[in-house]
Amino acid sequence: MSTYTLVIHGGAGTILKQDMTDEKEAAYRKALDEALNAGYALLAKGDTAVQAVLAATMSLEDNILFNAGRGSVFAKDGSQEMDASIMEGQHLMAGAVAAVRNIRNPVELAYAIMTKSQHVMMTGQGANAFAKLKNIKTEPDEYFYSEFRHDQWKQMQGSEEAALDHNIKIKDSSLIKNMEENKKFGTVGAAALDIHGNIAAATSTGGMTNKQFGRVGDSPIIGAGTYANNKTCAVSCTGHGEPFIRAVTAYDVSCLMEYKGLSLEEAMKVVVHDKLMKIDGEGGMIGVDAKGNAALVFNSEGMYRGMRTSAGNNTIAIYK
Amino acid sequence: MSTYTLVIHGGAGTILKQDMTDEKEAAYRKALDEALNAGYALLAKGDTAVQAVLAATMSLEDNILFNAGRGSVFAKDGSQEMDASIMEGQHLMAGAVAAVRNIRNPVELAYAIMTKSQHVMMTGQGANAFAKLKNIKTEPDEYFYSEFRHDQWKQMQGSEEAALDHNIKIKDSSLIKNMEENKKFGTVGAAALDIHGNIAAATSTGGMTNKQFGRVGDSPIIGAGTYANNKTCAVSCTGHGEPFIRAVTAYDVSCLMEYKGLSLEEAMKVVVHDKLMKIDGEGGMIGVDAKGNAALVFNSEGMYRGMRTSAGNNTIAIYK
Repeated sequence: MSTYTLVIHGGAGTILKQDMTDEKEAAYRKALDEALNAGYALLAKGDTAVQAVLAATMSLEDNILFNAGRGSVFAKDGSQEMDASIMEGQHLMAGAVAAVRNIRNPVELAYAIMTKSQHVMMTGQGANAFAKLKNIKTEPDEYFYSEFRHDQWKQMQGSEEAALDHNIKIKDSSLIKNMEENKKFGTVGAAALDIHGNIAAATSTGGMTNKQFGRVGDSPIIGAGTYANNKTCAVSCTGHGEPFIRAVTAYDVSCLMEYKGLSLEEAMKVVVHDKLMKIDGEGGMIGVDAKGNAALVFNSEGMYRGMRTSAGNNTIAIYK
Repeated sequence: MSTYTLVIHGGAGTILKQDMTDEKEAAYRKALDEALNAGYALLAKGDTAVQAVLAATMSLEDNILFNAGRGSVFAKDGSQEMDASIMEGQHLMAGAVAAVRNIRNPVELAYAIMTKSQHVMMTGQGANAFAKLKNIKTEPDEYFYSEFRHDQWKQMQGSEEAALDHNIKIKDSSLIKNMEENKKFGTVGAAALDIHGNIAAATSTGGMTNKQFGRVGDSPIIGAGTYANNKTCAVSCTGHGEPFIRAVTAYDVSCLMEYKGLSLEEAMKVVVHDKLMKIDGEGGMIGVDAKGNAALVFNSEGMYRGMRTSAGNNTIAIYK
């Protein structure tokens, strides 16, 4: 088997062409291209799907444009609390982390939990302690600071509301102006098939602006935000976390394939356009199967997304 | 529709008749009976399945015999960190809480998250802050203290190992002696069908003795430890959390019913005896469907369990 495939996303939501500048769109495309390069280069030299989704997701986490890792939004208390998960389809091994702080690449910590602990999920300060033990790279608060994220947060700080990344208008930050005027679900993720016939998926997020109470969305939930099984599919989701948890979205795609014989794309369409819509679940998902099929499906105005395959498909897209 | 049903569990594992005293067995049976009474009384007067699973689970949490609420095991740092979740099958609403401390009834907090917040899942200190805001009852550390739990923990404190409730031998605690010599997955839970035709499920746990790193098992994961959908089933799981998360166990039962047409019991058997066994997932689950069927399935030596139905079924059992 010499087919390999990588798909990525950088979040879904109300992303409209008319709100974009050429400069901004170019910045997003460049960021998505870099993430595809990072993962695809590994697949091309025979590395595993797990390594590829890890590299692609870390690249997106390192980019300030996306709400994950460095670009994570501010929680109500001014901190950045991040969630991530990863799963591989051969042995159904998984790792997940919720509500960690100062971790440069939360998905790298999720990978360490999968490969170097007896557990699947760790949270909060305990997860940070494990990260320290395993020499996972941390960064000071300044690393995660950006003017526009801080403006976002300042604007909401007095309220009890939490916002799904960018569904609030920013007043004065000309730098990223329109970008922040859109409703957008800030999450990044990747799914891949390697030449060995194995698949994997990963997801990472900074959650909701001004979130409080240690709120956790679907991103670190195996079965909701991330799932992988060689028999069916590897899927990473982005969207309004609560409906995605209630719909067990990623695993539902797998079950529709395994038990009803649907294709990857058919299954995703049922989940995204039918099941999620019924419970106001806005967002989307990307995925691959072990045969080399890939799908990128969303019910919002746009989803930052990209695909690169050994068959020569090389696509980056943002709008519907 | 005038059928109503309640099923409960108090954990699964290596629970053997030969390790039990009559006194100890009577104590467990009494505790299970009290929990059934608490939930069934509500169903009998027309209350909802949600209210019934809440009451039954809180009764089990209040009993020192079970690893949940008051009887929660000690984490490595000497604290009790508790997880719980609840879901209802009519609107697919859900609430979950992970790694909270000093909450008398974690399932009550999960219920408050479901009914009084815009979120599904909260963790750690943030979740405790939400609990305070909603006047959820807390208790001092002493409330959660018992000699045998403390002995359990003392014995493991120097090690890096974590134990799934009772898979360690206790040296000197004659009070509960043999009880603790068994491997047992300490979790409690309930599932119910009410006269309105709605179903619900809830799960609660104190996790693993000597656990560290903010480890979270399947109990607070919607789709893994708990799931409810009027179209299919309401399920609460107990067992080795990590395989249960990787197998998305509770939702898998629902998918096997919805997509393959299996009965509740058939679906549970596939998941517990086939899928979980393949990934060393020891434990079990209980559930109901909207037609009044109930099932209690496990692959371990025993599972503390009980069932009461409006048709007159009234059962408490421990062993195979």
